[in-house]
Amino acid sequence: MADEKLPTQAENFAEWYNQLVLKAELADYSPVRGCMVVRPYGWTLWENIQQALDKRFKDTGHVNAAFPMLIPMSFLEKEKEHVEGFAPELAVVTIGGGQKLEEPLVVRPTSETIIGYMYSKWIKSYRDLPVLINQWANVMRWELRTKLFLRTAEFYWQEGHTAHATEQEAREETLRMLDVYEDFAVNEAAVPVIKGIKSETEKFAGAVMSTTIEAMMGDTKALQSGTSHFLGQNFAKAFEIEFLDQNNTMQHAWTTSWGLSTRFIGAIIMTHGDDQGLILPPRLAPIQAVIVPIFRNDSEKAVVMPVVDRVFKELKAVGIRLKVDDREGITPGFKYNDWEMRGVPLRIEIGPKDVEKNSVALARRDVPGRDGKSFVSQDNLSGTVCEMLATIQKALLERAIAFRDSHIHDPRDYAELTQVVQNGWAFSWWCEAKACEAKVKEDTKASTRCIPINGQPDGAGNCIVCGQPAKRKVYFAKSY
Amino acid sequence: MADEKLPTQAENFAEWYNQLVLKAELADYSPVRGCMVVRPYGWTLWENIQQALDKRFKDTGHVNAAFPMLIPMSFLEKEKEHVEGFAPELAVVTIGGGQKLEEPLVVRPTSETIIGYMYSKWIKSYRDLPVLINQWANVMRWELRTKLFLRTAEFYWQEGHTAHATEQEAREETLRMLDVYEDFAVNEAAVPVIKGIKSETEKFAGAVMSTTIEAMMGDTKALQSGTSHFLGQNFAKAFEIEFLDQNNTMQHAWTTSWGLSTRFIGAIIMTHGDDQGLILPPRLAPIQAVIVPIFRNDSEKAVVMPVVDRVFKELKAVGIRLKVDDREGITPGFKYNDWEMRGVPLRIEIGPKDVEKNSVALARRDVPGRDGKSFVSQDNLSGTVCEMLATIQKALLERAIAFRDSHIHDPRDYAELTQVVQNGWAFSWWCEAKACEAKVKEDTKASTRCIPINGQPDGAGNCIVCGQPAKRKVYFAKSY
Repeated sequence: MADEKLPTQAENFAEWYNQLVLKAELADYSPVRGCMVVRPYGWTLWENIQQALDKRFKDTGHVNAAFPMLIPMSFLEKEKEHVEGFAPELAVVTIGGGQKLEEPLVVRPTSETIIGYMYSKWIKSYRDLPVLINQWANVMRWELRTKLFLRTAEFYWQEGHTAHATEQEAREETLRMLDVYEDFAVNEAAVPVIKGIKSETEKFAGAVMSTTIEAMMGDTKALQSGTSHFLGQNFAKAFEIEFLDQNNTMQHAWTTSWGLSTRFIGAIIMTHGDDQGLILPPRLAPIQAVIVPIFRNDSEKAVVMPVVDRVFKELKAVGIRLKVDDREGITPGFKYNDWEMRGVPLRIEIGPKDVEKNSVALARRDVPGRDGKSFVSQDNLSGTVCEMLATIQKALLERAIAFRDSHIHDPRDYAELTQVVQNGWAFSWWCEAKACEAKVKEDTKASTRCIPINGQPDGAGNCIVCGQPAKRKVYFAKSY
Repeated sequence: MADEKLPTQAENFAEWYNQLVLKAELADYSPVRGCMVVRPYGWTLWENIQQALDKRFKDTGHVNAAFPMLIPMSFLEKEKEHVEGFAPELAVVTIGGGQKLEEPLVVRPTSETIIGYMYSKWIKSYRDLPVLINQWANVMRWELRTKLFLRTAEFYWQEGHTAHATEQEAREETLRMLDVYEDFAVNEAAVPVIKGIKSETEKFAGAVMSTTIEAMMGDTKALQSGTSHFLGQNFAKAFEIEFLDQNNTMQHAWTTSWGLSTRFIGAIIMTHGDDQGLILPPRLAPIQAVIVPIFRNDSEKAVVMPVVDRVFKELKAVGIRLKVDDREGITPGFKYNDWEMRGVPLRIEIGPKDVEKNSVALARRDVPGRDGKSFVSQDNLSGTVCEMLATIQKALLERAIAFRDSHIHDPRDYAELTQVVQNGWAFSWWCEAKACEAKVKEDTKASTRCIPINGQPDGAGNCIVCGQPAKRKVYFAKSY
């Protein structure tokens, strides 16, 4: 596939993305409209994301479980805002085992309702709290305008669902998991994110407060990359999640939910990728380094391959995710392009001259051309490669932060705001009225992304839209 | 929950199982008939099973991917035997996004069809082969008579789907994965299994040959614990999985599929459990050892707890999955029963006398009472505990093999066969005619479980049912 050239990002960012996902064999369209196939290269990336998150969930006291994928329609109807939010997107099972069902079952769009029902069975006393459960699952929200990873009917995610004895504990959990998402995004994916609170308009159907991590993509659009919701007692009341407290009084529990999905793969692609293709952060890359042997004939091959084998074993032994590209009948140049397109962070070239000099050539994916190339000794190569991977990881994050910060603006007035959101984000005072948010969307297609938790200036200001007093600043941006 | 006593296995094996699954909090019934909730303790066991299998799949060259959970009804109809096998069990989505769908979509009962469709897109040349993909997924086969883990509408499994250039390669893959399942069952779960070939009647809908691992449960019934199918070119022809071979001739690929599901949790429960509850094999147990501190007052507590903490840290450091039961207001005896019921392989008791003597008491779950108890030094405790866990693992396997072998019979005639299958398996010559298999089932409810691959006697015999010449022996048994 590497023979057909991608469009450049500048030409057509959307097409660059679509074609890259297919060419790099991350995912494919499926015969079921709206659904995707995640191919092995994409799924391995997701597995690495899963491992990095799952460890953090377990370190913060959570355990995994599995709840049914089918939910009675009546369950969704128990929480008014929830059903209004999800009803238009449901896939509905009406036939089971050859019989029409008495009550239709929906394929879960999210699992607050069925998990709420089970929690009401399991939770009786304050001693049963908190309940800290996560599930890795597929969910379905009907959608025909497919954009692989970003907008598909079926997608993969984790959804955490917790129940607590007090409001404060549940609020703390909501923010704790937002911190976990930030830590993952920044330190594993090298995707800088801004933590904040969603507006009333943008919040989850049924939540009291939704929080989010927002990332800036290469076209400056925002991508909501993970969310954590404080659900108050809304679902506890709808599903009668009640417990006897220490004073023997019946109380409703306080619940939270939080999720991060395969959409995050889209965030990685669009944060780091360039015109040559993917650039994957070393900590999550399915293949961290590829070895390309270089020889023109059998006698050179006989010299080169033993060194390739030795280097492979040495790097493998320290846990580097590694591949040797020993395909025959394909030029090294073709291989370079192919692995660059697939975003492998580091290329290791070994030819007869390298063997002679006891060296190898390293080529960084994130720094194209000569600048990214270095010749290093074969001695302690595993140490050198590990250091280089850490350097690349750090450089990707720094570059993404620099890009983002150079595209965040503080417009002086509304006219300037409508300009800057065409190619960046605006960080502006907002009175938090829905009318002002709606006006910006109407005029510019930019929505409020979040009211950031950190980085609010002291004092107060005036809403950039209506001029009324405003307590907090918000990010306005176009988004996926 | 540990206060209500389980029925004994002898009283009512089925009820012992049902109540144990609930009491041990492995799983629960869900509000959707036929579906189960896998609770954290059960899911952690499944995660350990997944890890042990996934490593083996990757070591044999497989990669994971994800295919859609919804499949067009017309796909199933492309393979005649396949649709006949699965049609009665389908859950069907007829509404999506508020609209009636033009073509109904079924929730996958298995994924040969949709994966076959994708393989026909991806495979063009012999260079693209073999394709060795696995997916971890939920599947649905409509079922209202729920038996948790053993028979549920939705269940969890892995399904491997491979495509090969030659029949021989595909047949080798089928048997390779059967070996992987055997290795996993025996060496991780301590569940001895018999590898064999399914009869024509019992084989997978659409397969040329189905192979299986069969295990004997504590009530002597057989449980099919994993299957590996050689699909010939059946699905390749139905879905046009074609490739240009090295002679530039178009060929249909040869495919296999193989799966192991959450049903295997049932195999573990019913192979090892006893009247006190679960007995989990140490290599898969969510908790390998539980520390119970013993004290009667605060001054004893002050002496005991520092040792408990130190022991916990020491054992944790070597990777033992460990819990301290420091619940207050509960007697040690109650805790012992509780953890025995949950099948934790090893209990570590630490009281004031142990502190004085620099010892701890170890109690093996698999050897009840005094015989299973030993007092060991706190010095090098992690080494002692690791050895003990290995000893328990080995003992569980040996005991299960002894139990199984003592319940396998070689009946002299048909009358004896009808007797022995009431409380064991019969290993008998069979002519491989469907009529004989049907007669046994009619008369005894026992079915053919498998024609074993190993352990066939030399020569030939006469069918135990009809007396005609028979080439191979088969196991007859009642089954789950």
